[in-house]
Amino acid sequence: MSLNSFGHLFRVTTWGESHGPALGATVDGCPPGVPVEASALQHWLDRRKPGQNKYTTQRREPDEVEILSGVFEGVSTGTPIQLMIRNTDQRSKDYGEIAESFRPGHADITYWQKYGIRDYRGGGRSSARETAARVAAGGIARAALATLVPELSITGYMVQMGPRSIDRSRLDLAQVEQNPFWCPDADTAALWAEDLDALRKSGNSVGAVIEVVAKGAPAGLGAPIYGKLDTDLAAAMMSINAVKGVEIGAGMAAAMLTGIENADEITMGPDGPEYSSNHAGGILGGISTGQEIVVRFAVKPTSSILTPRRTIRKDGTPVDLVTKGRHDPCVGIRAVPVGEAMMACVLLDHLLLHRGQVGEGLRGRIG
Amino acid sequence: MSLNSFGHLFRVTTWGESHGPALGATVDGCPPGVPVEASALQHWLDRRKPGQNKYTTQRREPDEVEILSGVFEGVSTGTPIQLMIRNTDQRSKDYGEIAESFRPGHADITYWQKYGIRDYRGGGRSSARETAARVAAGGIARAALATLVPELSITGYMVQMGPRSIDRSRLDLAQVEQNPFWCPDADTAALWAEDLDALRKSGNSVGAVIEVVAKGAPAGLGAPIYGKLDTDLAAAMMSINAVKGVEIGAGMAAAMLTGIENADEITMGPDGPEYSSNHAGGILGGISTGQEIVVRFAVKPTSSILTPRRTIRKDGTPVDLVTKGRHDPCVGIRAVPVGEAMMACVLLDHLLLHRGQVGEGLRGRIG
Amino acid sequence: MSLNSFGHLFRVTTWGESHGPALGATVDGCPPGVPVEASALQHWLDRRKPGQNKYTTQRREPDEVEILSGVFEGVSTGTPIQLMIRNTDQRSKDYGEIAESFRPGHADITYWQKYGIRDYRGGGRSSARETAARVAAGGIARAALATLVPELSITGYMVQMGPRSIDRSRLDLAQVEQNPFWCPDADTAALWAEDLDALRKSGNSVGAVIEVVAKGAPAGLGAPIYGKLDTDLAAAMMSINAVKGVEIGAGMAAAMLTGIENADEITMGPDGPEYSSNHAGGILGGISTGQEIVVRFAVKPTSSILTPRRTIRKDGTPVDLVTKGRHDPCVGIRAVPVGEAMMACVLLDHLLLHRGQVGEGLRGRIG
Amino acid sequence: MSLNSFGHLFRVTTWGESHGPALGATVDGCPPGVPVEASALQHWLDRRKPGQNKYTTQRREPDEVEILSGVFEGVSTGTPIQLMIRNTDQRSKDYGEIAESFRPGHADITYWQKYGIRDYRGGGRSSARETAARVAAGGIARAALATLVPELSITGYMVQMGPRSIDRSRLDLAQVEQNPFWCPDADTAALWAEDLDALRKSGNSVGAVIEVVAKGAPAGLGAPIYGKLDTDLAAAMMSINAVKGVEIGAGMAAAMLTGIENADEITMGPDGPEYSSNHAGGILGGISTGQEIVVRFAVKPTSSILTPRRTIRKDGTPVDLVTKGRHDPCVGIRAVPVGEAMMACVLLDHLLLHRGQVGEGLRGRIG
Repeated sequence: MSLNSFGHLFRVTTWGESHGPALGATVDGCPPGVPVEASALQHWLDRRKPGQNKYTTQRREPDEVEILSGVFEGVSTGTPIQLMIRNTDQRSKDYGEIAESFRPGHADITYWQKYGIRDYRGGGRSSARETAARVAAGGIARAALATLVPELSITGYMVQMGPRSIDRSRLDLAQVEQNPFWCPDADTAALWAEDLDALRKSGNSVGAVIEVVAKGAPAGLGAPIYGKLDTDLAAAMMSINAVKGVEIGAGMAAAMLTGIENADEITMGPDGPEYSSNHAGGILGGISTGQEIVVRFAVKPTSSILTPRRTIRKDGTPVDLVTKGRHDPCVGIRAVPVGEAMMACVLLDHLLLHRGQVGEGLRGRIG
Repeated sequence: MSLNSFGHLFRVTTWGESHGPALGATVDGCPPGVPVEASALQHWLDRRKPGQNKYTTQRREPDEVEILSGVFEGVSTGTPIQLMIRNTDQRSKDYGEIAESFRPGHADITYWQKYGIRDYRGGGRSSARETAARVAAGGIARAALATLVPELSITGYMVQMGPRSIDRSRLDLAQVEQNPFWCPDADTAALWAEDLDALRKSGNSVGAVIEVVAKGAPAGLGAPIYGKLDTDLAAAMMSINAVKGVEIGAGMAAAMLTGIENADEITMGPDGPEYSSNHAGGILGGISTGQEIVVRFAVKPTSSILTPRRTIRKDGTPVDLVTKGRHDPCVGIRAVPVGEAMMACVLLDHLLLHRGQVGEGLRGRIG
Repeated sequence: MSLNSFGHLFRVTTWGESHGPALGATVDGCPPGVPVEASALQHWLDRRKPGQNKYTTQRREPDEVEILSGVFEGVSTGTPIQLMIRNTDQRSKDYGEIAESFRPGHADITYWQKYGIRDYRGGGRSSARETAARVAAGGIARAALATLVPELSITGYMVQMGPRSIDRSRLDLAQVEQNPFWCPDADTAALWAEDLDALRKSGNSVGAVIEVVAKGAPAGLGAPIYGKLDTDLAAAMMSINAVKGVEIGAGMAAAMLTGIENADEITMGPDGPEYSSNHAGGILGGISTGQEIVVRFAVKPTSSILTPRRTIRKDGTPVDLVTKGRHDPCVGIRAVPVGEAMMACVLLDHLLLHRGQVGEGLRGRIG
Repeated sequence: MSLNSFGHLFRVTTWGESHGPALGATVDGCPPGVPVEASALQHWLDRRKPGQNKYTTQRREPDEVEILSGVFEGVSTGTPIQLMIRNTDQRSKDYGEIAESFRPGHADITYWQKYGIRDYRGGGRSSARETAARVAAGGIARAALATLVPELSITGYMVQMGPRSIDRSRLDLAQVEQNPFWCPDADTAALWAEDLDALRKSGNSVGAVIEVVAKGAPAGLGAPIYGKLDTDLAAAMMSINAVKGVEIGAGMAAAMLTGIENADEITMGPDGPEYSSNHAGGILGGISTGQEIVVRFAVKPTSSILTPRRTIRKDGTPVDLVTKGRHDPCVGIRAVPVGEAMMACVLLDHLLLHRGQVGEGLRGRIG
């Protein structure tokens, strides 16, 4: 019910604003006995950290996470884990125009209308900085998953930036960490670098599509009808700043398929059912099949750009607004680790839910 | 938390299987004093009802809704409203092969694996029949919205079937109820009729994209960060059977836009802010802007088809399965009233949430 | 969040009014594979059924439960179980004075003030009839517990009626089903019969205290800090109509104890820890110890009495109100099976929660 | 669902252990525009603070609260408010025996059994220190209530310690802050001082009963059937450490009343209904009447005492345990501000819930 929480049994509440004293995540429901080290969480946070190359915001913050509770002698105790990240690079500056006017395509105007007050410094609660808390919480989820499903791996990467998509015939996960775009296709990464240089120079920004794949997830996760695995994944991804679309498996393109094409045929393999294809994205009837779970989401272009756009002030007067400051030309890049974190949280949550209602493992045997 | 519930304050729990005694919805949190008539709910159910033309399943059921509680002297009392629909056309037949084998692309296999038991008759809980309960609940939501926001209207329609999309220059909402496809473009409707005739004859099926638009929704609905209006809409639509993708506003295409293109510029109109465009789909930072709220979702092709597909039985032996019975060649058609119902439920829920936390109306004034 | 639901993973939503078409319970989260028969549920309902002796309301209803969903071939499927009980003995009569005036000590006035509408027939939603739905849901919980913890037994009984308490030295559970009061002390039962005869003749009613004991519940159920087992038990019992107080173990009398007296000393027995006493009522720090779980609750006297009491009408005019009709002189009697049902629901829920977060069994070994 | 959260719309999650780096509360759903100052929260925390007189633990901590988010320019923004209190007086010492053995009557053993790990330092999560976070959150609730219902006041006080109760004929709220026991009866306070001196010297401890009264709460708060105001109050109070019983109005004594005695008769006053008495404790059918809301709860004696008690170690060996350290001889004393805080949180939550479902004010008029 909490509007800043997600998850059923593994439940994450994030809090904090971009330029307040700190932000973080309250993580409840973690199984006991999970090894949790600040350094391991830091590994994931560092992947999201701004200022690492010229394609992300030049704001420089260590994003250092402090574990305030729920961990004793290096392992989780089963009580709430509080993760705090101090904000350290809030430049003290004049927010004049931003404080009074509303960036087009930004939450400025709706926060103001709804609440009658907004922390305009750096976007406040609507800043992409909030996603650091998700990544930290995702680190806890990954640690728990590592103890419960060691064979599970979660990998995110960018598959489209602006009009340019990767060539799937060249998809190579080993490339993902080799370029600043988490791009699994080296050739496309090179082209994106050129594209983004041009956009940045022209005071513009661009959107992107991120794909997140979970390999090794067990069958049986998810539950009809509103606790479906795909329902919760869709909600998790759509809750990330600037996301405008979410797809599972074939996604929107499923509309173009016929039933014959779409049927992922089933055969019996040595270890259980095998599928001829994966249009379903690893989920049937809201429940995982044991195939790869495939989610994609589209991130809109950063709304804070250097090109003036028409807007209004709180008093209703018009203004041509230019957003200075240190903004990502493609905020989708840094959404990759965020998408991975959300996948980890949702899978752990459904693993615990399944164990709660049904018990360990699957109840229905095949073969 | 209930896995078969959605909504925060206006909370709907659906229950029931395709071929059990009945199905329905438990609707909690409806404001008191809302006029609720079974006949008004029936109006919405009749739009979803099967067997109305040759493009939907030939199963014929009256889908008659009975109000069992929560309504007194024609108005809601504020207590739970129980809506029940008896199943009347469950043909008693031999389910032999379906009971033993798993349709490709269907929830058969995952329900079995997870629970070790499934009601295989007509798909059980995973049947599209469950959506009748949503439509009934949506009727309650519409009645409440009519008292709270009389100017609000919600309209759904199909914009794509297989590879063929509507021509948006011909979009005319007056056409929507004039053809069996809820198609707002008469010319495309005619072509879809041909397409679907051919598919049906060849024992095939096809996917579709549905768009649902809410006009007249107030600004201020939704809340950061995990109770965003778009988060809840994405979850609501993704929870509908066979949905594989959800988009808000520009949707997946937002990835192809630049920040300059994507910025919906703001000017001051006589009644408040006005926007030059609506790439945002009426939602910024998870909160409604007062523009049209635009959601799209893709429905995969029906997996129950007359063309044999390879699959396995519970015992692991292979079988070429043909699904006889009365199935929709394009289940997307009947998803249109369902999408409308989900939109109504989500908007009412967020209206109540807003009123709860913030009070009536908006707190921030512009101009 | 639903205001008519309780439980986390095993979640029960009740619905319905006293004189509407039906009432019932939507039960979500039941483990799959649990044998569920209407006849078994009926067993529990029959214990709560009115009109069985002269000490309960003379309303005569079969309280026949119908299972509408979630059960297939005699076992639960893991999907929502809808339990419906038709109301059959709603006498059509003139509700004149009751419709216009407010019984002292009854929900009449608050429902009216809050909602501006109330179903005054038989108390509507606030009728003790609602508890039939709880008893039915409790029957599901008992069936699930029987498969998961076969050694668990739950027994409720009355320990006080008006000023007269049982003599604990004579407490004999075998007596509980031998008298109309669920009284474990035969001598006290005889005296209660005299007491209640006199009260009934004088147009009066009386309160009672019920004790519910769970024997054989495993250690480890419950969770800090707001999901404590005692927190959930207190809420469950307090939610029953007319309950004004809840105690765990020593209860309110704990205030009178010293730390030396209150300490349930621990020794090591052959099967694990043993305790010298049970002031804790089987719960320490919100988590079960493996001892008997002991809950008591006080039920106020029925407010609908034949003796005139001063009150007002909707228009504010004064009236001396006599409540005719068929009311229980001691509504506490029929609360016994209700308290048992709530205990069953809460224990099952926490069993599933424990299994979800921690896994099967206990993680900490002693000895 | 979160096991460490309470509240529906105004939702508080507490976190932290007694001797970890910090503890605190994540407060979600606060209305925007509420003045929130750390100094105002500190006022409430100081009332609960240990070490203020010889009757509470001698642990000395400033319990200084830091507001990390959700407040901008002195008012709440509607986003989560994070309240952190650093632990500063964790004595570094040898926890030897406590780490290995289980205090009788304490959560030591159940935490260990359930989780297989416990932070034994100062009781970890089960320490009464957790209640500091509740008091801080209650300060937020009080600030919001002050803007929404300025006439509301909440006052807690002790009415019983050990076998000695206050004399209600001498009850004077002006006395409450004049003695170290929050006792509204000066004569009894003097006797309690003697009683407690003796207990403390003998290495013993004692229980207490606390009463919390809300004056000026509007009618209409609460909702059937499981979101009743009394249900939520019972859960809130029972969730406080060491509480074993909760009463509303007449409480357990309601069992001894007849219907004639218990009926709070209603008359029409100049400002609405008036009641001849308040056995109901201001709540009928789960909904507030507008009378004083009266809750009582019993706190068991502190289990950490200087008198040796028999218990066992993790390895099962017996030990006579003496708990050294700085423990409250009557932990009930410091529970008074905690009970007030819980009352504030529950009332605000229900005020928002009512506004959400029903709108501002009451819908039913009388007179």
